[in-house]
Amino acid sequence: MSILIKNGRVVTAESDYIADIYVEGESIVAIGKDLPYKADKTINARNKLVFPGGIDPHVHLDMPFMGTSSSDDYENGTRAALFGGTTMVIDFILQTQGDTLKNALKTWQAKSEGKAIGDYSYHMAVTDFNKKTAKEVIHMIEKEGITSFKTFMAYKGALMIDDGQMVQLMKVVRDHGGLVTVHATNGDMIDSLIAKHRAEGKLSPLYHYLSQPEVTEAEASARFADMLDYASCPGYIVHMTCEGALNAVRNATTRNQKVFVETCTQYLTLDASLYKRKDGAKWVMSPPLREKKDQVALWSGINHGLVQVVGTDHCPFTWKQKQMGKKDFSKIPNGHPAIEHRMELLFSEGVGKGRISLNKFVEVSSTNAAKIFGMYPRKGTIAIGADADLVIFNPRTRHVLSHKTHHMNADYSSYEGFKVKGKTETVLLRGQVAIDKNKCHLEAGYGQFVKRGKTSLTI
Amino acid sequence: MSILIKNGRVVTAESDYIADIYVEGESIVAIGKDLPYKADKTINARNKLVFPGGIDPHVHLDMPFMGTSSSDDYENGTRAALFGGTTMVIDFILQTQGDTLKNALKTWQAKSEGKAIGDYSYHMAVTDFNKKTAKEVIHMIEKEGITSFKTFMAYKGALMIDDGQMVQLMKVVRDHGGLVTVHATNGDMIDSLIAKHRAEGKLSPLYHYLSQPEVTEAEASARFADMLDYASCPGYIVHMTCEGALNAVRNATTRNQKVFVETCTQYLTLDASLYKRKDGAKWVMSPPLREKKDQVALWSGINHGLVQVVGTDHCPFTWKQKQMGKKDFSKIPNGHPAIEHRMELLFSEGVGKGRISLNKFVEVSSTNAAKIFGMYPRKGTIAIGADADLVIFNPRTRHVLSHKTHHMNADYSSYEGFKVKGKTETVLLRGQVAIDKNKCHLEAGYGQFVKRGKTSLTI
Amino acid sequence: MSILIKNGRVVTAESDYIADIYVEGESIVAIGKDLPYKADKTINARNKLVFPGGIDPHVHLDMPFMGTSSSDDYENGTRAALFGGTTMVIDFILQTQGDTLKNALKTWQAKSEGKAIGDYSYHMAVTDFNKKTAKEVIHMIEKEGITSFKTFMAYKGALMIDDGQMVQLMKVVRDHGGLVTVHATNGDMIDSLIAKHRAEGKLSPLYHYLSQPEVTEAEASARFADMLDYASCPGYIVHMTCEGALNAVRNATTRNQKVFVETCTQYLTLDASLYKRKDGAKWVMSPPLREKKDQVALWSGINHGLVQVVGTDHCPFTWKQKQMGKKDFSKIPNGHPAIEHRMELLFSEGVGKGRISLNKFVEVSSTNAAKIFGMYPRKGTIAIGADADLVIFNPRTRHVLSHKTHHMNADYSSYEGFKVKGKTETVLLRGQVAIDKNKCHLEAGYGQFVKRGKTSLTI
Amino acid sequence: MSILIKNGRVVTAESDYIADIYVEGESIVAIGKDLPYKADKTINARNKLVFPGGIDPHVHLDMPFMGTSSSDDYENGTRAALFGGTTMVIDFILQTQGDTLKNALKTWQAKSEGKAIGDYSYHMAVTDFNKKTAKEVIHMIEKEGITSFKTFMAYKGALMIDDGQMVQLMKVVRDHGGLVTVHATNGDMIDSLIAKHRAEGKLSPLYHYLSQPEVTEAEASARFADMLDYASCPGYIVHMTCEGALNAVRNATTRNQKVFVETCTQYLTLDASLYKRKDGAKWVMSPPLREKKDQVALWSGINHGLVQVVGTDHCPFTWKQKQMGKKDFSKIPNGHPAIEHRMELLFSEGVGKGRISLNKFVEVSSTNAAKIFGMYPRKGTIAIGADADLVIFNPRTRHVLSHKTHHMNADYSSYEGFKVKGKTETVLLRGQVAIDKNKCHLEAGYGQFVKRGKTSLTI
Repeated sequence: MSILIKNGRVVTAESDYIADIYVEGESIVAIGKDLPYKADKTINARNKLVFPGGIDPHVHLDMPFMGTSSSDDYENGTRAALFGGTTMVIDFILQTQGDTLKNALKTWQAKSEGKAIGDYSYHMAVTDFNKKTAKEVIHMIEKEGITSFKTFMAYKGALMIDDGQMVQLMKVVRDHGGLVTVHATNGDMIDSLIAKHRAEGKLSPLYHYLSQPEVTEAEASARFADMLDYASCPGYIVHMTCEGALNAVRNATTRNQKVFVETCTQYLTLDASLYKRKDGAKWVMSPPLREKKDQVALWSGINHGLVQVVGTDHCPFTWKQKQMGKKDFSKIPNGHPAIEHRMELLFSEGVGKGRISLNKFVEVSSTNAAKIFGMYPRKGTIAIGADADLVIFNPRTRHVLSHKTHHMNADYSSYEGFKVKGKTETVLLRGQVAIDKNKCHLEAGYGQFVKRGKTSLTI
Repeated sequence: MSILIKNGRVVTAESDYIADIYVEGESIVAIGKDLPYKADKTINARNKLVFPGGIDPHVHLDMPFMGTSSSDDYENGTRAALFGGTTMVIDFILQTQGDTLKNALKTWQAKSEGKAIGDYSYHMAVTDFNKKTAKEVIHMIEKEGITSFKTFMAYKGALMIDDGQMVQLMKVVRDHGGLVTVHATNGDMIDSLIAKHRAEGKLSPLYHYLSQPEVTEAEASARFADMLDYASCPGYIVHMTCEGALNAVRNATTRNQKVFVETCTQYLTLDASLYKRKDGAKWVMSPPLREKKDQVALWSGINHGLVQVVGTDHCPFTWKQKQMGKKDFSKIPNGHPAIEHRMELLFSEGVGKGRISLNKFVEVSSTNAAKIFGMYPRKGTIAIGADADLVIFNPRTRHVLSHKTHHMNADYSSYEGFKVKGKTETVLLRGQVAIDKNKCHLEAGYGQFVKRGKTSLTI
Repeated sequence: MSILIKNGRVVTAESDYIADIYVEGESIVAIGKDLPYKADKTINARNKLVFPGGIDPHVHLDMPFMGTSSSDDYENGTRAALFGGTTMVIDFILQTQGDTLKNALKTWQAKSEGKAIGDYSYHMAVTDFNKKTAKEVIHMIEKEGITSFKTFMAYKGALMIDDGQMVQLMKVVRDHGGLVTVHATNGDMIDSLIAKHRAEGKLSPLYHYLSQPEVTEAEASARFADMLDYASCPGYIVHMTCEGALNAVRNATTRNQKVFVETCTQYLTLDASLYKRKDGAKWVMSPPLREKKDQVALWSGINHGLVQVVGTDHCPFTWKQKQMGKKDFSKIPNGHPAIEHRMELLFSEGVGKGRISLNKFVEVSSTNAAKIFGMYPRKGTIAIGADADLVIFNPRTRHVLSHKTHHMNADYSSYEGFKVKGKTETVLLRGQVAIDKNKCHLEAGYGQFVKRGKTSLTI
Repeated sequence: MSILIKNGRVVTAESDYIADIYVEGESIVAIGKDLPYKADKTINARNKLVFPGGIDPHVHLDMPFMGTSSSDDYENGTRAALFGGTTMVIDFILQTQGDTLKNALKTWQAKSEGKAIGDYSYHMAVTDFNKKTAKEVIHMIEKEGITSFKTFMAYKGALMIDDGQMVQLMKVVRDHGGLVTVHATNGDMIDSLIAKHRAEGKLSPLYHYLSQPEVTEAEASARFADMLDYASCPGYIVHMTCEGALNAVRNATTRNQKVFVETCTQYLTLDASLYKRKDGAKWVMSPPLREKKDQVALWSGINHGLVQVVGTDHCPFTWKQKQMGKKDFSKIPNGHPAIEHRMELLFSEGVGKGRISLNKFVEVSSTNAAKIFGMYPRKGTIAIGADADLVIFNPRTRHVLSHKTHHMNADYSSYEGFKVKGKTETVLLRGQVAIDKNKCHLEAGYGQFVKRGKTSLTI
């Protein structure tokens, strides 16, 4: 099967030109002006943008959490992602403390195999580190193509490892070319503040926010950078939300250290004033939304190259699930539906409002994730030989986000009524039309697990 | 005329893949696997790298300075550049204090027109700022395609403007989409140290170095950033050499400010120990070479995105010219021959030694300069419709730099005996073979003046 | 003559106890509980505080400036100072550019000798530096007891020296145990902003403020610290007003550098909102008043030991004089009447409002100035053998500042209506009652020139 | 009983003059020139310095630790302190996790009552924090005169509280005018490094040092400052050793925060090269000795007012006790004998070598501790009404430190052979001669527990 995309404005993390793209099988074969190929299918992309398929490096599909499970499984989640122009996601495997990484991998394979529509990979969350785990980490890198290891500085007793384990893990990962990623918040402080607020009868969603002040994230980010420096190890901070944490990373660069940063769409576009609303539970996630000054800092961080990646931390729950915490913010399942809107929001709020360039948009929504996580140049670019993961995007279409129209399994939207300019129209995944005319044309099982290579530090 | 480059490893600031490139006229028409075109000429690039033509944003050709003139004119200088893979340069026009920008432009046009082999543009150095200059600045941006304005914080009485003029210039330039660039050193301190050393009979080249300590550059860089912040203006620091200055820019990013940074090949590869040599005059330039810790900081700055561009400050003098300062370092013409070696040195010391990626190499040697200085996407990339400025590069060829083999008009080399791995083999400039088989195939006058657009701040 | 002060609460920069103080001749002879001395005069200080006489290190008496002269001469100025509890002042001698320091000294001696009531010393402002000046500097330190040298980074063409001269001066001063002090603002930027505002017809006092934004002071303070570091020299910044400048000094401490800081009462108590008033000219001084956040930073700086001294920059002009700039802020004589209120304001706003301790009050109003400027232990303390310069202060007396009651030669007050708690009641200067019952009991000529020793850096 | 000290050079944190001091009962009654008192005893102090008695805020007497007890009990420890000029110490009570503060207090009272020769107080170490502890903390402040609360960020499972407990404790202590002090090192990282080194068979004392790299202290100090800031609470870091930690506190001052710092004599005078010696166990303490650059930073910190107090962390063990860790550094009892040498070392290395002034010497060896810990003006000064705790010191006596001559219960000296200039000759404690002619003239039980008041933050 071959496809010829005609006259699109092709945008990568660096390039911007008008051309035809010729796809054969799963890959891109040629790019040019008036290409002399005949294809099985021709798509007219005149006046449209053509991007590399988006990569969301931070999603939680079918994840058991707080006594329930996130409401999108692999099929629904990757489909919703495709609707928004995200052709690949990286999910998190959670080791059960006391159990092996291998068993955790099996559990997650059972969730994804035969179900995923879009492509996917895994980060392995190491929640318990000992000598045996060290060997498993090496196995994951060398044999399974899982090269990034998530750690938690919060959730003591469930997911957290202490700073001693952290440094040990860093050394093993460094020696084998992997990457340590981190949820960088001071869990002990947060637990204490949650307990205090509950004891005082302060139970509304606002207290979720007030239990995780900026300092808890800034401190932990600085501490993580200090540990990386000691271990001579690169690292990656997930879902950064605030200026304080960004400054911690900036300071680390004076030591010529590399600490990658991911933020999420919500931290760039929404703020903590939402927690005062009656339905504030919709935005209960960790870390919480912050202030407008943090948005400014994060957009600036993207332009300064301090923030390399924009994900979502997609972890949807239905309103009924959210109601588990109706009387106590600490029981609200943390997370929100976001996987579908990442590309459009980033385009509309970023490119559309002059905050970032088109190239930067592609860089942080796709290319950098591919490079950092060892999938480049197969993913993350529009180039000869790369997977034909392509988004044809109309930059002029105005639409409004709503749970009525989104494809995520959530009966509300965190962005209900949010106006967006720019819309994903057609999506190709490995040479197949995945999305077109508001329909998904692929089925469960089409999505492949992408074995990843080692981290590229000099991206 | 058409050219087909077969099977090269095409590398841009973002991409890296194997493909054919088809060139017709001055532009790139198609890129692909086994492209089905017939061309007037076919070049086999198998096992070679194909880069966008290099852009050196900092050269001085035929420049009157210190009672003499730099020894490369436009013909020789741009030819030497082409031999090294640099297809375009940006030279500096120096306003004479008391005279107009227009007259300065005329002077420089007379030097370049009909002589340049490679493409070129100008920065306009504003050495005298008043209301009339303000109008001329606007004219340069709007009519002449000269959008960057060089300032000097040193050379009082000849080139320097004071901080008051600087802020006024910044506001005019900002309002019209241009860019203020700066030679950021504390000229008063330096003049005083030079006078002191001379008074003490300390006249060897080493005292050139000791008259420009790191603080003179760090201080001025911080001051420039402060002024930019006050004027809400972006800026660009040329030829940065040291950690102290880099930290000044890093600190400025906490204010969400954009200050672009250029370093030069020599500051990445050579150090101040050379000034103790008998022939230390060869490296007398301003700012001077620094210490090894500064090299580490600058390479790291490139990887952190704090340093966007690598130039040369090419300003060659013959040994006889350098002898003007035989008895007094302050009379040695400042500058060195470098235009030819930039790409190969950066490749060999950067990519070859694992300090930067191939993509980063292209980004800092070509793409960023094109974007920052308003020539993108015509220059700085390999993309459909772009100028066919291409370098075919053999990454395995080992060679040794020497004045015996270089093409610059200097009877010594600053890199005599320096071992380099990787060599420019073939160069195309706007679809014509400029360099091949160690010969230049273009003639004086082929080079065009490139009218530039406004600065892109969110590169 | 002998005086016995009974039962006062004696407070020094470190101590705080109730005791009698016995004074004989000019000095303190004994301190104790129920001292067994008979004195010519006994003063009951029960429930009163007894402080060392205040030292104001920054005043301008009878100073020619902007086409007029400050309105307090030595007699009136030092008398007003005594009324407020300040027993000694340090005035500034201004070298005329092109003329000698010696001539400047003579000019100032003519102003003070036979006129001063309170004690005094001089800072020597070096406005023109060359080899001859260098020798004069040494003479001033070794022979005249003038050990501090004021420099201006502003007022080009009148008072300013450039950064090259600055570094040279620093080295001479350092080698001979003196201290370089500085008016640290970027004069070129300020001149340019003044010119701009005038050209735009923005002529009200508010534009005085807007012509000297915080950056002009922060930048110059950082630059001064950089130069000190290069010259391995201690320094002293006069009349610091803002957080940005304080941060510059804080950063300098990371280099283990010593940069002393003086602020003035007005910067701790008044803010820039006054410039919007019709009579804004009253507060036209340089640097201008700043924002409330700067007050917070300065009080904190005092407690952190970053700010050692509080002066006034007393430079009064009558309202008629101020009217010289009625139509143009740039012609308003810069300065305000303040010498009398320093101690009471600092006590009321500092100690009274819990911002500083009683000990810190004495430290910054007297002791540190004595130590830094080489007059300790003769001045600045209450100790055996020290000059009996004593202030008996009632911490409970409430009063209101007004031009109707002040003793300075100004027909308005910068603090009209300001409520103060705490009042100087009795003042001794070298064993003589200077102030008592709201009268001055000393006459012109009593005040002595205090020859100063070298700077103490480890105060 | 009365004592008249004649003609000494009296030095306090601020003053410096020659005078007689007249003591009656426990207090100072008068200070003056040729005082007209007759006393029971006269001491000639001509050519001697007279200081306030030293206060060592950090000692461990008779402390159970690592399976043994520190080898100085209250009698021997406070006597040795007196020999060196330290008239008062503050020891640490350690709460047993799970037990009450009250019981811990009783245990320590049993150690001290009837035994101490010198005066003493306690810090209360809170090793387990809950609601009940919160009430006990208030009781300690309000009723017992114990107003400082020590916390540990290391020694998990024995002494450490987590960051959540820390913040809760801070709020209680703040609300009641106390002070939280901290052993600021990242215990988890250290434990992990110890385990690693042991697993690798790296068991010599050098690995004690390498298990506690600078980052472990710098990180924890920054984290502590962050928590203080969040809790709006002042704090105090004990035994700071390094530049990294000092910079953390310096940075905190930009938030106008107050974090007091204590260093110890050994960190100012000894360095980590000692760990390579065969008898390296002598200096095994936590944190360990650091590098020479850290000494420079700490001396500078003292002069900048960032370091307010110099203690010892006196915790002696005999060589036999140290041999418990002969084969494993982790079993070496941590601590060293130091209580006796603090004043003389600080004088000799500080004042004698020009690093600090005489006033600063008194400030950091006595006055600041008295102020910070609520004992001022009874302790820490030479003033009317203050306790007559006085040290008569000969600044010219040269001597050599040795276990043969020291009075601490340790059969070796950490300073064996160290040359010191300046010696404590006579010591008075509350009006009694404690030390004279190398003998102690007081007996066990003379020492009193000093009930302390609230912390003074604006010292």
